Amino acid sequence: MRSRSVRVGPFSAGMLACLLGLICNSAMAGNNPVDENWWPSEFGADDTCGALNYITPEKRLEAVKLVKQGKTLTLGMPYQQGMPLVPGRTFTLLIPGAGQPMWGPMRWQGEAFKLSFNDEIVTSEIGQVGTQFDGLGHPMIWVNGSEGWAQGNYMYNKRRLEDTSNGHGLQVNGVENAAEIGFFTRGIMIDVPALKGVQRLEQGYAVTVDDFTAALKRQGIADASQGDVVLIRTGWIQLWKSYLDENGKIAAPEDEVRVANEEYGSSEPGVSAELCDYLAGKKIAMLLADQGAIEPVDNTKGPGPQPFGYCHMNLVVRRGIYLFENIDMEGLSQEHVYEFLFTWAPLKLVGATGSPGNPIVAW
Amino acid sequence: MRSRSVRVGPFSAGMLACLLGLICNSAMAGNNPVDENWWPSEFGADDTCGALNYITPEKRLEAVKLVKQGKTLTLGMPYQQGMPLVPGRTFTLLIPGAGQPMWGPMRWQGEAFKLSFNDEIVTSEIGQVGTQFDGLGHPMIWVNGSEGWAQGNYMYNKRRLEDTSNGHGLQVNGVENAAEIGFFTRGIMIDVPALKGVQRLEQGYAVTVDDFTAALKRQGIADASQGDVVLIRTGWIQLWKSYLDENGKIAAPEDEVRVANEEYGSSEPGVSAELCDYLAGKKIAMLLADQGAIEPVDNTKGPGPQPFGYCHMNLVVRRGIYLFENIDMEGLSQEHVYEFLFTWAPLKLVGATGSPGNPIVAW
Amino acid sequence: MRSRSVRVGPFSAGMLACLLGLICNSAMAGNNPVDENWWPSEFGADDTCGALNYITPEKRLEAVKLVKQGKTLTLGMPYQQGMPLVPGRTFTLLIPGAGQPMWGPMRWQGEAFKLSFNDEIVTSEIGQVGTQFDGLGHPMIWVNGSEGWAQGNYMYNKRRLEDTSNGHGLQVNGVENAAEIGFFTRGIMIDVPALKGVQRLEQGYAVTVDDFTAALKRQGIADASQGDVVLIRTGWIQLWKSYLDENGKIAAPEDEVRVANEEYGSSEPGVSAELCDYLAGKKIAMLLADQGAIEPVDNTKGPGPQPFGYCHMNLVVRRGIYLFENIDMEGLSQEHVYEFLFTWAPLKLVGATGSPGNPIVAW
Amino acid sequence: MRSRSVRVGPFSAGMLACLLGLICNSAMAGNNPVDENWWPSEFGADDTCGALNYITPEKRLEAVKLVKQGKTLTLGMPYQQGMPLVPGRTFTLLIPGAGQPMWGPMRWQGEAFKLSFNDEIVTSEIGQVGTQFDGLGHPMIWVNGSEGWAQGNYMYNKRRLEDTSNGHGLQVNGVENAAEIGFFTRGIMIDVPALKGVQRLEQGYAVTVDDFTAALKRQGIADASQGDVVLIRTGWIQLWKSYLDENGKIAAPEDEVRVANEEYGSSEPGVSAELCDYLAGKKIAMLLADQGAIEPVDNTKGPGPQPFGYCHMNLVVRRGIYLFENIDMEGLSQEHVYEFLFTWAPLKLVGATGSPGNPIVAW
Repeated sequence: MRSRSVRVGPFSAGMLACLLGLICNSAMAGNNPVDENWWPSEFGADDTCGALNYITPEKRLEAVKLVKQGKTLTLGMPYQQGMPLVPGRTFTLLIPGAGQPMWGPMRWQGEAFKLSFNDEIVTSEIGQVGTQFDGLGHPMIWVNGSEGWAQGNYMYNKRRLEDTSNGHGLQVNGVENAAEIGFFTRGIMIDVPALKGVQRLEQGYAVTVDDFTAALKRQGIADASQGDVVLIRTGWIQLWKSYLDENGKIAAPEDEVRVANEEYGSSEPGVSAELCDYLAGKKIAMLLADQGAIEPVDNTKGPGPQPFGYCHMNLVVRRGIYLFENIDMEGLSQEHVYEFLFTWAPLKLVGATGSPGNPIVAW
Repeated sequence: MRSRSVRVGPFSAGMLACLLGLICNSAMAGNNPVDENWWPSEFGADDTCGALNYITPEKRLEAVKLVKQGKTLTLGMPYQQGMPLVPGRTFTLLIPGAGQPMWGPMRWQGEAFKLSFNDEIVTSEIGQVGTQFDGLGHPMIWVNGSEGWAQGNYMYNKRRLEDTSNGHGLQVNGVENAAEIGFFTRGIMIDVPALKGVQRLEQGYAVTVDDFTAALKRQGIADASQGDVVLIRTGWIQLWKSYLDENGKIAAPEDEVRVANEEYGSSEPGVSAELCDYLAGKKIAMLLADQGAIEPVDNTKGPGPQPFGYCHMNLVVRRGIYLFENIDMEGLSQEHVYEFLFTWAPLKLVGATGSPGNPIVAW
Repeated sequence: MRSRSVRVGPFSAGMLACLLGLICNSAMAGNNPVDENWWPSEFGADDTCGALNYITPEKRLEAVKLVKQGKTLTLGMPYQQGMPLVPGRTFTLLIPGAGQPMWGPMRWQGEAFKLSFNDEIVTSEIGQVGTQFDGLGHPMIWVNGSEGWAQGNYMYNKRRLEDTSNGHGLQVNGVENAAEIGFFTRGIMIDVPALKGVQRLEQGYAVTVDDFTAALKRQGIADASQGDVVLIRTGWIQLWKSYLDENGKIAAPEDEVRVANEEYGSSEPGVSAELCDYLAGKKIAMLLADQGAIEPVDNTKGPGPQPFGYCHMNLVVRRGIYLFENIDMEGLSQEHVYEFLFTWAPLKLVGATGSPGNPIVAW
Repeated sequence: MRSRSVRVGPFSAGMLACLLGLICNSAMAGNNPVDENWWPSEFGADDTCGALNYITPEKRLEAVKLVKQGKTLTLGMPYQQGMPLVPGRTFTLLIPGAGQPMWGPMRWQGEAFKLSFNDEIVTSEIGQVGTQFDGLGHPMIWVNGSEGWAQGNYMYNKRRLEDTSNGHGLQVNGVENAAEIGFFTRGIMIDVPALKGVQRLEQGYAVTVDDFTAALKRQGIADASQGDVVLIRTGWIQLWKSYLDENGKIAAPEDEVRVANEEYGSSEPGVSAELCDYLAGKKIAMLLADQGAIEPVDNTKGPGPQPFGYCHMNLVVRRGIYLFENIDMEGLSQEHVYEFLFTWAPLKLVGATGSPGNPIVAW
């Protein structure tokens, strides 16, 4: 999700504490993929659906009960040329045609009117741009020079990329498995800026377990439980939305858009390692954030890029818990909606690492 | 949706009747976009959301009550190279990398393990391949040589493509408008093959209002009402599914896939003009079919392509009622599920004509 | 070649003179596509090759005689993500693979070594990015509201886009026609900065006929003659080359590249209308420039974009004389090479408007 | 160049002889990349241009003397949807626009006429489809489990893909190096079908050194020498050309095209290992064939795919001698032209493995 040239991610408070030997919860200490058996996952060695297994019919019925007003919101951000992209990724959408629509006019009775059609041709890393879902084949743990391990990149359930995939798509852990099931469950939104009384969190800020529990209390909702999807709001996405009009179209000069995108992408507040571990312990199905990386990034810290990827490694690779990034939670915050039915399925892109998306929440 | 070289679509029974002067309901008679005022739409001249306006909070609450067992199904078909495509369209998905993953290894403590990532690069007419949603900018009525009309292609609310769009995307009627709202409503599935006691309907068969009402009765569900989405099952998609394994991957030799795709795409049963009009009268929000065109196509009829597009012109262009094609209803049929909560939002592809999708239904 | 939002191109000196009624050569006066018969072209109404017809076997033999030292240069610029692009266009090149090469290992004797392969997947407006050749289907004269003309876009030999093409490619005037023949002829390079004693010309400067003839004299070469290709050097491409290393790779920070690209693309010196007319009178086969538009552009002039396209309309559309943009002439200038064999053929991209390229010159 | 699922290539006569211990010339015996030092190449460990170094100014002057009639031909095949592709590769070309051209109308004096433009958007493995040039980063020798070798894929000059590239392009051995120089040299065409008195060679036939020398004698031309490019004609490309009209457009029904493409791609005559070695000994710069793989392929031999890649490994990887496939030599054969100036440069696609092309030959 981050480019080679911007290897990012700060030491979270929890991680620093751990490194300093002060506090070190077991999940933190466990973050050593070469010494610990993190496979098979609790869903079995053959499983390809990960934490979607947590969502039961009972859970779905419980979630449906949260819909009391018949209101809905969609949480996806608009996909368009000019949106923030990790440098090197691309998005282009064109309407083909040449002085006329792409298809038609079709045959019809008479000549006065007929049917014609438009298409769009899109090229993009479509599963990993904008609002993006991280499937079980997106993040990997790269292992190098450890005894008993073939060098390579290991996915969920210890599947080595080099053994199980080729350039035409992942042969295992493709997003089509999660897409077959989809998310239909309780969602909760944790409004950290509202808790702190700020517009948005600072870059690099790592949302803690204390923040999380204080927000739950302030918002009057129950803690995360098995099968939930948890949305952590940082407010960071305001930077992106700043140049969009009410229809989601870019409505600012190119320079302004570029500057906003650069600020949006270069650093960000995010979720601390300890909170990721906490939520993993609650057996949530998915963690969502209104920024691009889940983990926080602070580019003001020292020279060069910083360690990155605690949550990606420990949630997705080790436990099959999904991530969903660049989620728009501004509407939920404005409406003070903290608990809802969350419903969405990835596209069945066979062999893909992720999916674009536009979830619906209802309350 | 159909290529220039395969202008298709039979005269439906209703249309023939109309042409012969036998029966001619008002909707049918109204199918003359140059003589009749079909604009502004009932939602106003500025509206860009069409029949999504039919879905009210009350409707949503009613739909939620249909979820009694906590079961769900996803209705999208898998997207992959080798799936059926209108000739000339394309789908390619590749995992970039060169002897290693695309991104990473990221910086981390120590050298024994680190985080790495995969992407996918996709090129496709992504809104109009496979499971595809027809937004208000996909079908148009081409008008030529009619007094008072500038020659051109007219979309919903009489917006002329030539005046309102360019190759970078539709400036009006883009799918981002529907995507902002999304579908969260009652869905009903009409199982016509089950009614008829056949595996699947014949190519060219046009599902009638009589079929529809007989199926409602057989299935014990209430008629379509305002804001519903209506799924008409023909069974035709079995041809496509015939070569997929249980994970949705192609599991047959290339030749077999090609032959199946050709049969699937060259003709099909579909929805009659009179049923489209009937459902329009019920103010449904969307019509879905398990084939690629909504309307039926019969390639055995006479030489050359046949008239095509009654439902596209009369539902989408004239009334803003959406279409969704290549929907997998086999699971619903097997489970005898006919009434459910239907939930899905298009991707917010700014300026696009349609969207890929994978709706969730719950009951 | 310029976007809708940057409609550009100054009044050239010649054009101003014409407008003011001072001097008005016949070619200038003739620039009225709706009142004058500029079709069929001198090569006949069916011709699709334009000024390539000027290149005869005798011409080729004459050109070959210019090769006296056995030296060569290639004149194409490198294609890569980060190169200057008209806003809205795209270029992406990725190597597919997933922890291993895209293809192979192939079968071989034994297991110790085998053959494997890499590909590249490219998405781009490939005929109209970077070093780009304008075929007979790229520029058009748009005609609106003129008696006797159907509204629309007219290409070489008065072929209306709307009648002769569709989104799958131009049905006439595709670049495959020029590609079948290719350029193998005398080339001359006019080094205007060297004449003027400057590093490069100013933005907006329009190279005049006087400049041209003075440069010929200074360089000691004969005037352009039938079938020649004429390279006008402005030095402008130095802005682009400023951030490339000796292998043509980008070797500067992203910000520096962006600023250079913006300067390169927003304005430029170019070829005056009168010089275009002069060269057309000489029956040249192609006009090349080391900037992106052939015509000059001056963004310091007044508010809003300026008229643009005299040479595109009068050379390509009316006469079938080709244009080739973003040509690197720095090496020729450094070597003081002004006359040479020029050899290159477009790619046979069926139905395309242009082609990428990398011409070879030999002397 | 061949997919994983069609690992192809027969034992050539020479290779069989070698395996049987009958004859085994040194080049053949040398085909063991793990035991022999084939690096650095004769051009030095830092070289990235390979056999282009063989082409000297003297060679170019010699080649120019072959142009006596001023005639030319272009040898590229047309690129279009429907051309033969290795299964899994793609080619799509679309003209963007939406009821009007992509760009313009530009500003101009008055409103009666203005300039407008068309583009094309292309997605393809553009360097490895149709007429395709194999650069130094396309074929590799995969080494596995050999002492002293890190497992991986080794390119020209023993550069390991895993160490020197990423998904954004090859960091070494990219085609931009060859493109900077280009081919301007003597070409010879060896017309094997004419020698044998057949329309085209049989699939699997491997052109021998005897064939080569007999053809030279029959054609009255001198043997290959340092810096030459050698075109081996098999006639196989007639299968592809069978469905093209005189403008290179597809002019047959889809089924016919498919069948021809399948025959074209599934097997082919080609160049024997011994002839590859012979030509390597002559220090040629490039070997070209009118089929897709250089080496022969015979699908009638036994079950499963056969060994493949002698020439790719021994010419490109070990010696830096280039390959160019799917070259149209039919015109040369018809004109009995066997010796000529060959001139072409790859596109400067930075980091690419190959290039599309359309070489010009002159005589």
